[in-house]
Amino acid sequence: MKKVCMVIGAGSGIGGTVAERFARSGFHSVLCRRSNKDSLERLVKKIRRNGNEATGVLINAIEPNSLEKCIEKVELEIGPIDTLVFNLGAQTGSKTLDETSKKTFELAWQLATLSLFRTASSVFPYMEKRSKGNLLVTSATAAFRGNVGQSAHASAMAGRRMLCQALNAEYASRGIHVVHILIDGLVDSPETLGKIIGNQAFEKLRKTRGLEKDGLILPEKVADTYLHLVNQHRSTWTHELDLRSFTDVAWWNH
Amino acid sequence: MKKVCMVIGAGSGIGGTVAERFARSGFHSVLCRRSNKDSLERLVKKIRRNGNEATGVLINAIEPNSLEKCIEKVELEIGPIDTLVFNLGAQTGSKTLDETSKKTFELAWQLATLSLFRTASSVFPYMEKRSKGNLLVTSATAAFRGNVGQSAHASAMAGRRMLCQALNAEYASRGIHVVHILIDGLVDSPETLGKIIGNQAFEKLRKTRGLEKDGLILPEKVADTYLHLVNQHRSTWTHELDLRSFTDVAWWNH
Amino acid sequence: MKKVCMVIGAGSGIGGTVAERFARSGFHSVLCRRSNKDSLERLVKKIRRNGNEATGVLINAIEPNSLEKCIEKVELEIGPIDTLVFNLGAQTGSKTLDETSKKTFELAWQLATLSLFRTASSVFPYMEKRSKGNLLVTSATAAFRGNVGQSAHASAMAGRRMLCQALNAEYASRGIHVVHILIDGLVDSPETLGKIIGNQAFEKLRKTRGLEKDGLILPEKVADTYLHLVNQHRSTWTHELDLRSFTDVAWWNH
Amino acid sequence: MKKVCMVIGAGSGIGGTVAERFARSGFHSVLCRRSNKDSLERLVKKIRRNGNEATGVLINAIEPNSLEKCIEKVELEIGPIDTLVFNLGAQTGSKTLDETSKKTFELAWQLATLSLFRTASSVFPYMEKRSKGNLLVTSATAAFRGNVGQSAHASAMAGRRMLCQALNAEYASRGIHVVHILIDGLVDSPETLGKIIGNQAFEKLRKTRGLEKDGLILPEKVADTYLHLVNQHRSTWTHELDLRSFTDVAWWNH
Repeated sequence: MKKVCMVIGAGSGIGGTVAERFARSGFHSVLCRRSNKDSLERLVKKIRRNGNEATGVLINAIEPNSLEKCIEKVELEIGPIDTLVFNLGAQTGSKTLDETSKKTFELAWQLATLSLFRTASSVFPYMEKRSKGNLLVTSATAAFRGNVGQSAHASAMAGRRMLCQALNAEYASRGIHVVHILIDGLVDSPETLGKIIGNQAFEKLRKTRGLEKDGLILPEKVADTYLHLVNQHRSTWTHELDLRSFTDVAWWNH
Repeated sequence: MKKVCMVIGAGSGIGGTVAERFARSGFHSVLCRRSNKDSLERLVKKIRRNGNEATGVLINAIEPNSLEKCIEKVELEIGPIDTLVFNLGAQTGSKTLDETSKKTFELAWQLATLSLFRTASSVFPYMEKRSKGNLLVTSATAAFRGNVGQSAHASAMAGRRMLCQALNAEYASRGIHVVHILIDGLVDSPETLGKIIGNQAFEKLRKTRGLEKDGLILPEKVADTYLHLVNQHRSTWTHELDLRSFTDVAWWNH
Repeated sequence: MKKVCMVIGAGSGIGGTVAERFARSGFHSVLCRRSNKDSLERLVKKIRRNGNEATGVLINAIEPNSLEKCIEKVELEIGPIDTLVFNLGAQTGSKTLDETSKKTFELAWQLATLSLFRTASSVFPYMEKRSKGNLLVTSATAAFRGNVGQSAHASAMAGRRMLCQALNAEYASRGIHVVHILIDGLVDSPETLGKIIGNQAFEKLRKTRGLEKDGLILPEKVADTYLHLVNQHRSTWTHELDLRSFTDVAWWNH
Repeated sequence: MKKVCMVIGAGSGIGGTVAERFARSGFHSVLCRRSNKDSLERLVKKIRRNGNEATGVLINAIEPNSLEKCIEKVELEIGPIDTLVFNLGAQTGSKTLDETSKKTFELAWQLATLSLFRTASSVFPYMEKRSKGNLLVTSATAAFRGNVGQSAHASAMAGRRMLCQALNAEYASRGIHVVHILIDGLVDSPETLGKIIGNQAFEKLRKTRGLEKDGLILPEKVADTYLHLVNQHRSTWTHELDLRSFTDVAWWNH
């Protein structure tokens, strides 16, 4: 039975690409996303066509018991979850305080923080029995500083980061590797960035800044680093790192 | 009409003491707390006996609309809220991940983060019209690092800190002074510390470490600094600072 | 005999203003600066004219033994140094790496870091005997992040900050209060800012942003906070805080 | 002609091991260290015996022009420096302030900060012409917080970190990848750790904590991550990361 790499938030950007890369490296990838069944099935088929293993799951992470049941089902029916990639975005859009409803504020927290807590609570008991496991958490600049329009996002992502530190403090010595990965720049991802700035603007950005210019973070290159993190020996683990394009300015300088 | 200093979380420790100090300095202090009506009334009476103004309000902060209505009522019936001291603790106790229920995790967030969001959303429109106001936020070490047993607390308090940064980014230039105050040590407070470690242990600690030894943070000295922050000129504002006893080791060193 | 407040770097901006304020509060202020004897004497005379005590010293801080001898002399001839305000700038100008000579790099470190080390080494033995003393250290944004043109300045100021933390870790429990004060914005100071951007630009900035607009940090308001820090009770000390105008954007957001 | 990996501080721990690994991956490794010619030659021979390329250089980094000349010589006589691993320790021992001489304080800065500045100043012009290069900087916990006994070490290492940020801010967009790597735990290295705590204590520690227990950071595993960092695509670079054993407590929690 293959080791499982379960990706929560497996769209066509970082999540799906990481799933594909891990499948190529011998994992059975379980791709979980909320919507767009067609896109999910295409990705799963693509992985299988290359002779690798994948399963797709449509799941609404913020629905009670959704993550919990899914993790249980994967453990029982597919295989032991060696690596969980927590890649849910919590970008509820740039909203000033007076534009931010209580509902939006709560949603950001459910996506960024509570879902990660529920995920860890569900999957760590399995990993702990095996004294082995990885939790890779994709995160954002807002985890490090609160800026204009980021009341909901920044407070939620900071919660995500501190939760990673608390989980690491409790579980590292039991063999569970928790990594907080700061994506500190724009990602070349139509489903994420394209949705935020619009398809036309995205295609333009891609041409002027991405492509041969390497000015957008490339999901397949992110996957290289995610795989490296999982392959790190337990004597020499990374817990926090950042990723940005060579033309990006680090968050602390802008 | 006097300026109002509204304290959310006005127990007998930092909150109540700050309320008393601000009343002595010419504010009408509004003391809000969830329970212990007797203690609240005693404190209000004490302030009035000294010739100063105070009002006590029993309020459950996490109940929907509680904070919102209270702020509106104070603005309409008592006076303009010049200073809001947000002093709600979110210490749900040191609990390992498997001891932390979803309910506890959510409660910590409601106390630490959501209540602050609701408070700012309610009071900032009033302050903004006056181009003037202070939001002093008491915070804890857990806002800066996640440790064992702190999954709920650390993620919630980090949310509190980043929310303060986001609020400051949006409202400083409109005259609203937001301060995140890290209390990085034990406070000489029977209602808070006494409850956590037990009355006997607290009294012993007080004798061995507090009193003439000044090894516990004294609420009346905290109040000195809170008052200084409110008196800072808008050309020269502090947004983040720490407070600890001279015998405390700073969080970054332990 | 009055307590002494010794200010290293007492120009007409923060340093001189703090010296004046402390003199007004009952200290004998010792103003140390490298050059501009006339300006120094004017300031000392002004303080004395108001019935307060001050002494001016011309001193080149980076000259071997200069600070050491001066501290000894003050302790022997003027009075016990209760408060030392370390206010030496280390701004060697914005210089790209290839514009930064080894000499410039070393100079920044001597001003920012080594001089502070020598100061603490000289004055702490006196303070330790009295179990009491304050070291207030003025610092800059560069202590928190390295930006373009800041190789020399940022590495030197970061050294200053970490030195403050190490000094605090060793000496807080012996009664010596070390504070690292981040000045995170432009200061209304002709001798510092005026020199950097030119007098004309400075006067223009003052008119458009300072004055009634409060968009420049005012030295006299900084002095308020320095005095508050010295007056903090040892049960409730601040070690790190920031200061900026209400229209300044915090460093973490730009 | 092979690409060069130049290691400054190539003892038998991280430095030498990284040199060996890079040689195995196709680099010509240039190993620079201050003393112990025998050990250096043994390591160079070992690399060559495995069919790979290496050169050993004895060099005193803090001697004026030593690094500058060595970098020039390597560029002219061996090949283009693709990767420079800056691995000089600056551990002048845990010394309280009164035990720290000005000489020690300066030495720590020369090793930690000035040498890195001189290295970057010398090697970046070469890398810039090629629009390509890596500067991997080994760093220590003291770069993040100042603790007891660390006046010299912490201020020097913080200077190292901020210098890395400034260099990255200036050179990333020109193709030079600067990484600050925090080694946040004890390394299984007889020449470094063995010297600090003594050979007997080191061997005991190794048995009780290292070996099958993986409780010491293993240099060969560190080398895995160094190699990964150099292989990162410029669209997706890491600038700051940490490394520690799974049983190490992260610095922010102790």
